[in-house]
This record gives sequence, structure tokens and C-alpha cells, in this order.
Amino acid sequence: MTLHTDRTYEAELQALRDRLVDMVGQVEQMTIEAVKAVVDRDAQLARETIRLDRRVNRAEVEIDEACMLLLARRQPVASDLRLVTTALKMVTDIERIGDVAVNLCERAIDLAGEPPIPGIDEALNALGQLAAAMLRKAIEAFAERDAAKAENVLEMDDDADERYHQIVRSLAQRIRDDPDKVEQNVALQSAAKQLERIGDHATNLAEQVILLVRGQDLRHQGKLA
Amino acid sequence: MTLHTDRTYEAELQALRDRLVDMVGQVEQMTIEAVKAVVDRDAQLARETIRLDRRVNRAEVEIDEACMLLLARRQPVASDLRLVTTALKMVTDIERIGDVAVNLCERAIDLAGEPPIPGIDEALNALGQLAAAMLRKAIEAFAERDAAKAENVLEMDDDADERYHQIVRSLAQRIRDDPDKVEQNVALQSAAKQLERIGDHATNLAEQVILLVRGQDLRHQGKLA
Repeated sequence: MTLHTDRTYEAELQALRDRLVDMVGQVEQMTIEAVKAVVDRDAQLARETIRLDRRVNRAEVEIDEACMLLLARRQPVASDLRLVTTALKMVTDIERIGDVAVNLCERAIDLAGEPPIPGIDEALNALGQLAAAMLRKAIEAFAERDAAKAENVLEMDDDADERYHQIVRSLAQRIRDDPDKVEQNVALQSAAKQLERIGDHATNLAEQVILLVRGQDLRHQGKLA
Repeated sequence: MTLHTDRTYEAELQALRDRLVDMVGQVEQMTIEAVKAVVDRDAQLARETIRLDRRVNRAEVEIDEACMLLLARRQPVASDLRLVTTALKMVTDIERIGDVAVNLCERAIDLAGEPPIPGIDEALNALGQLAAAMLRKAIEAFAERDAAKAENVLEMDDDADERYHQIVRSLAQRIRDDPDKVEQNVALQSAAKQLERIGDHATNLAEQVILLVRGQDLRHQGKLA
């Protein structure tokens, strides 16, 4: 391989990394705006945020194609090969985060005009900020090849799950106290569930990063031991 | 490439296909048993089914490794390359179906000892059979390279979504009528949600099969038009 080709190849791998980082930035932004739309009961912001998903879908197709081209033309091996196969898996999770954020926006539209609910709204907002922070940390871990940072995302997910279950318990109590308001409470429960799912996808990304950096499979260690 | 190597390579690709088919068979079986555990309130069956997930997790690691070896040693191109990159993505969905089936089993354990609910139990059972049929059809479409059959899975998912929403509506009515039974109804709602998620994963698999067979990206056609 000539020096020129070598540099082009390195630049292609770096472009792939940059595109993944950019795509995560897009769904992180969608998550933050979707949560704001839910908490502020802002259907207009929700509709604007839904439109952002087109760019995410386009990024998925483009990154998949870039991976296929790299595999076919450059025939990467070792850690470069692992980067490309990891990118193929990560891009699928990132695209689905966009779909989940759209789902969250649809709950915001359902909730538009409903009164604020002190306690629940703050808890949803905190869970949303946590989910967005998990995405940011997972992709920082990818960019910096930092497995310890990725492991931190797994710990954050325990916190996200606990916050989600607290919200569900509070909403179940509200339904018992006021069975006539069941639709609003179910929409809020669904919103919380979407945020918990974004946390799960961030965890999937972090697990892929750990696998990429450490070059070994930690995904099912506990279960296989 | 010698004839011998060529035959070995073909055998490796076929082994990859067979492993994916086998892995889907495993999660299809888990889905069927998990639904039976929910509907029969059978905690013992639920616990036995949860144990099956270890094999699914092991299959994920093994298939990922087989894909990496194929890419590194055989440097496949064109449709062979697409088969391997598709396998890498499909295996992630299949493994998550196992996780969702475990989640469903956990709801069965929550529900153990609760009385049957005529109407809801039958609807859950029908949704479970549909989700299992979607998995079977998606993997048949993969094995037979049949894009039309894969498209059929997408239509079945509309039916699954409608059945899911009917169950949620019935359960919301039950919560209004009898707010004291909220936990049982929430567990049943969560069970229905898990089945809807299995339908979504089957749809993801079918979309990957369409892409593999047609060699073009149909995933976001509607959204990009």
C-alpha cells in the first residue's frame, strides 16, 4: 500500500468515526427537544423535532454504504475490521434512537393542552437529561476509545431504570386516585418508557464500545459464567 | 482460489445462514413458551424459558466471531459481503428478542397466582402466536431469499400493532372499572408491550432480508421521498 493510499484509508476510517459521532449528536439533540416538548406540552416543538428524523435516517443509509465500501475496497483487518463491523451495529441502534425520539414527540402531541403535573414533569425531565447524557458519554467513549467511560454508561443505566420505575409507580398511584385521567397518565407512562428505551440503546452503544476497545466480548460474561 | 477453497468458503457462508436460522428458531421457541407461561400463569415454565436465553447469548457471540473470521480471511465482495454485514445486524436483533422473551417471562412470574382474565388472555395468546409466526416467516424469507415473503412480515406487523392497541385499550378500561387491580393490569399491559416489541424486531429482520435480497435500501424510502 503506498503512503498516499494509506493516508486516504486512514482518512476514510476517521470520516467513519466522525459520521457516527455526528449522528449520535443528532439523536441526542432530538432527545433533548422531545423531552422539552413533553414537559412543556409543546406540540409545535414536537412536530419540528419529528422532522429531524429524516436526517438521521439518511445518515444510517450513508454510513452503512460507507462501511460496505470500506470492507469491499480496503479489506480491513484486525482493529480496523472491528471498527467497521462495530459501526454497522452502532448505526442501527442510533437510527432506532431517532425512532424512539419520534415516538416521544407523538406523546408530547397527545399531551398538548393537558395541565402540568408537578413532580412527574420534573422527574421526566431529569430522566430525559440523564438519557441524553448517556448518549453523549457513550459516543465520547467511542471517540476517545475509553472503555472505562463506556462502563460508566452502564452504571448510569441502573439510575435511569430506577428513575423510570419511580415514575411508573407514581403514575400508577395517580391512576388509582383518579381513574378518569387514565389516558393522560398512560401517555406520560409511555413517555417515560421511551426515555428508558433511549437509555437502553445508549447502553447497547456503550457495550459495543467496550467490545471494540478491549477486543473481547463482555456482553454476556455474567450470563455465561 | 482453488476448487477446494471455493467449496470450503461456500460451506462457511452456508453454515452462517444455518446458524442464523437456528438462532431464530431458539427465540421463536422462547416466545411461544413465554406466552404460554403468561397465559397459564405458569412461573415454573417462565423460569425454564429464561434459562434458554444463555444459548441465545452464546449464539450471538459465536455468529459475530464467524462473521469477523469470514471478513478477515475470505474478504468477501458483492452479495457475499452483504450477507455477512446483514448477518452482523440480524444477530443483534435476534439476541434482543431473547432478552424481550426473558422480560415476558418475568411478567409471567409477576402474574403467577392471579386469576385468568377471559378476553385479555385470549388476545395476548393470539398476539403471541402472531409474533412467533412473524419470526418464522422472516427467517424463512431469509433462508429462501424471498423478498415478497419478507414484505408479508411488514403487513403482519400492522395487525400486531392493532392487536396490541386493542389490548391496551381493554386494560385501560379495566383499570378505570377497578382501580384496585392496577398492578395486575399493568403487568398484562407490559406483557402485551413485549409481544409488540418482538413483532418490531421481526419487522427489523424482514427489512434486512428485503435489503439483502433486493440489494437496495428500502428502509427509509417513504421518509426520504
